[in-house]
Amino acid sequence: MRPLPRVVIVGGGFGGLQCAKALRDKPVDVLLVDTRNYHLFTPLLYQVASCLLNPSEITAPLRKVFSGVANVRYREGEVTGADFAEKYVTLADGAQLSYDYLVIATGSATNYYGNDSIRRHSLGLKDLGEALQLRNHVLESLEHATTAPNDRERQRLLTFCIVGGGPTGVEYAGALGELARLVLPREYPELTPSELRILILEGSDRLLPTFAPSLSAYARHELERRGVDVRTETLVASADDEGVVLRDGTEIATATMVWTAGVRPNDPLHEKPERLKVDDHLRLPGVEGVFAIGDVAAAHDKHGNALPMVSPPAMQAGRYVARHILDGGARRAFRYRDKGTLATIGRSSAVGQIGPARFTGFIGWIAWLVVHLYYLIGFENRIRVMMRWAWYYVRQDRPIRVVIRAGPSKQQE
Amino acid sequence: MRPLPRVVIVGGGFGGLQCAKALRDKPVDVLLVDTRNYHLFTPLLYQVASCLLNPSEITAPLRKVFSGVANVRYREGEVTGADFAEKYVTLADGAQLSYDYLVIATGSATNYYGNDSIRRHSLGLKDLGEALQLRNHVLESLEHATTAPNDRERQRLLTFCIVGGGPTGVEYAGALGELARLVLPREYPELTPSELRILILEGSDRLLPTFAPSLSAYARHELERRGVDVRTETLVASADDEGVVLRDGTEIATATMVWTAGVRPNDPLHEKPERLKVDDHLRLPGVEGVFAIGDVAAAHDKHGNALPMVSPPAMQAGRYVARHILDGGARRAFRYRDKGTLATIGRSSAVGQIGPARFTGFIGWIAWLVVHLYYLIGFENRIRVMMRWAWYYVRQDRPIRVVIRAGPSKQQE
Repeated sequence: MRPLPRVVIVGGGFGGLQCAKALRDKPVDVLLVDTRNYHLFTPLLYQVASCLLNPSEITAPLRKVFSGVANVRYREGEVTGADFAEKYVTLADGAQLSYDYLVIATGSATNYYGNDSIRRHSLGLKDLGEALQLRNHVLESLEHATTAPNDRERQRLLTFCIVGGGPTGVEYAGALGELARLVLPREYPELTPSELRILILEGSDRLLPTFAPSLSAYARHELERRGVDVRTETLVASADDEGVVLRDGTEIATATMVWTAGVRPNDPLHEKPERLKVDDHLRLPGVEGVFAIGDVAAAHDKHGNALPMVSPPAMQAGRYVARHILDGGARRAFRYRDKGTLATIGRSSAVGQIGPARFTGFIGWIAWLVVHLYYLIGFENRIRVMMRWAWYYVRQDRPIRVVIRAGPSKQQE
Repeated sequence: MRPLPRVVIVGGGFGGLQCAKALRDKPVDVLLVDTRNYHLFTPLLYQVASCLLNPSEITAPLRKVFSGVANVRYREGEVTGADFAEKYVTLADGAQLSYDYLVIATGSATNYYGNDSIRRHSLGLKDLGEALQLRNHVLESLEHATTAPNDRERQRLLTFCIVGGGPTGVEYAGALGELARLVLPREYPELTPSELRILILEGSDRLLPTFAPSLSAYARHELERRGVDVRTETLVASADDEGVVLRDGTEIATATMVWTAGVRPNDPLHEKPERLKVDDHLRLPGVEGVFAIGDVAAAHDKHGNALPMVSPPAMQAGRYVARHILDGGARRAFRYRDKGTLATIGRSSAVGQIGPARFTGFIGWIAWLVVHLYYLIGFENRIRVMMRWAWYYVRQDRPIRVVIRAGPSKQQE
């Protein structure tokens, strides 16, 4: 018996997961490789960072997703190289995994544009470790502010600077504003809510630059209504222990800079700054049986524009490549269908655009809730997240405010 | 107006929390000091380590517990010294907190009995950071076992050695056994469940030495039925990267040693190995207005036996000291009421003794569930934990199997 074609998928994000799911119980042998043992639902990461959700509620262990599926296996590992002629990839632990088809779906990472001072002095919001680090940092900054030795230090600890006015920055700024507004008056008698400053700094002339201008204006209004200081056409030049320095020389004293202002493709093979070039069938040109999908790949829409680095193109591409492999290549070119985009600002407030339609306010928020619950992986997660949102809505609480790090206790050291 | 008496409580564990709660809205000014910003329900810590519960479900942020309570405040800090004559304590950050009454409720820490090799090569199960570290370590050991270079290393990675046959060791061994039995067959096709070895090593001649012998025998039987290798009269001499060495010279190759074999009082002031001596009113002898309660204090029952280092004496002592302070000292001596003790072995199986009564099996398990839900802090936590247990019971799953560490992403380094 001829062995089944071997498909190696590198990355268990949106693209890789959809590809593996579409190959489930099909006549191929699938190996899903990831450094993490879970799929992460990144659109809700900011809710972990802002004390509303648990990590387990926005993750799905990859082995659990493919529990009982005979032809899909998971392997923990970091791909560090590939031999396209001999058709194998190399892992950091030295293992070589041979493939008939290789799907590179390694997503993206934070882009600091080479600015080392920003890299060292900012907090990210791109993976789960960063979200937990940010949550811990914000809670500790509030604690330290209650016992700060002077007003200057107190003000610095109570200034939270979010760089980047895209969806991640806007959603986190709104959530942080609500956390402060709900929790500070009740539980921090040492602080007055008006002392807390949340800034969002965006380089272009409006928030959410990929949305319609009317939605940008709405987002700005809603954030400002929640006490967020919105500054557009504002670029950060550098950062140090005291705060950030803007391009125009302004210094902002802050203990917390959250960097959401750039992503770069996370190419495990070449460490190139650009997205991997692919043909209209999402194949790497010039090599056989290699596909690249999602954030790491430079696929284009019918107008020749690069697809945005968000989850819908990755998911569509994952399913496309799976069908392409199963059909033996007899497929027409990949065509991305833009189903629209949504971003939430807070309780009962969101913006969205689907084709020519625009949504704001409560309707947008409900749309946002439904879409995010729908795409979340796992029935259990959907139930739990829905319950947390209901609780949050009724009780107006963001309850997960514990500072935790995995590691030995202090006494042991 | 004369200022209210100032009560400083050091430690937000069972004793400190009960003391602060009993002083809520009373004519005293309470400051609760802890290095952690949350109360931890330690009896369920092993369920975090064994992938069943989230940290947030067994913790309560201390500020949230006293939300809206005007006379109880929280301060993050580590007490490093005290001046009993001038009546103040010193924190690690240099602050001095003056008191009229001081309640030392700092609990206990892991005791390695001076054995440095064990301290360095074992994992603890005494605080939340350790529980998460243990969860990560077990999940990673399973992953590494699937790709181990040889059978010897594979067997070492699949050997889990729990030292200490008290409630923590027994409960974790049972939970780990269930995790393996439920998850391995479905999700680790590379491993066979019979390859996995769980050992529990106890120095005395039976598990649960503080329980009745019949219950010890039941616990042993139930653990063995779950595939746990129970070894009594077995002492660990040392440990290294390869595994543990027993007193009789036997070597056990293992990548995971969990040390639950000893606790010591966590005295912040003297770093003494013994519990703090207290009089029959729980006062430190020879100084004014200083109490010590719970694990850190050497209170005795009416027969002159030291109270066990578990939560019920701490909670009773916390309430007693609060009343003592409010009454201005006109109280009779502290008398501990033993309400019984419970330990669970797994699904539908637990042991308990209340006075002369003994429980095992399903009845014991239900008693265990009810008591733990009752004492868990917070209505929301009770609902969530109850739902997780129901899910676990029906679906037979331990779903929280994600390896997470708070910190910057790898790409940033």
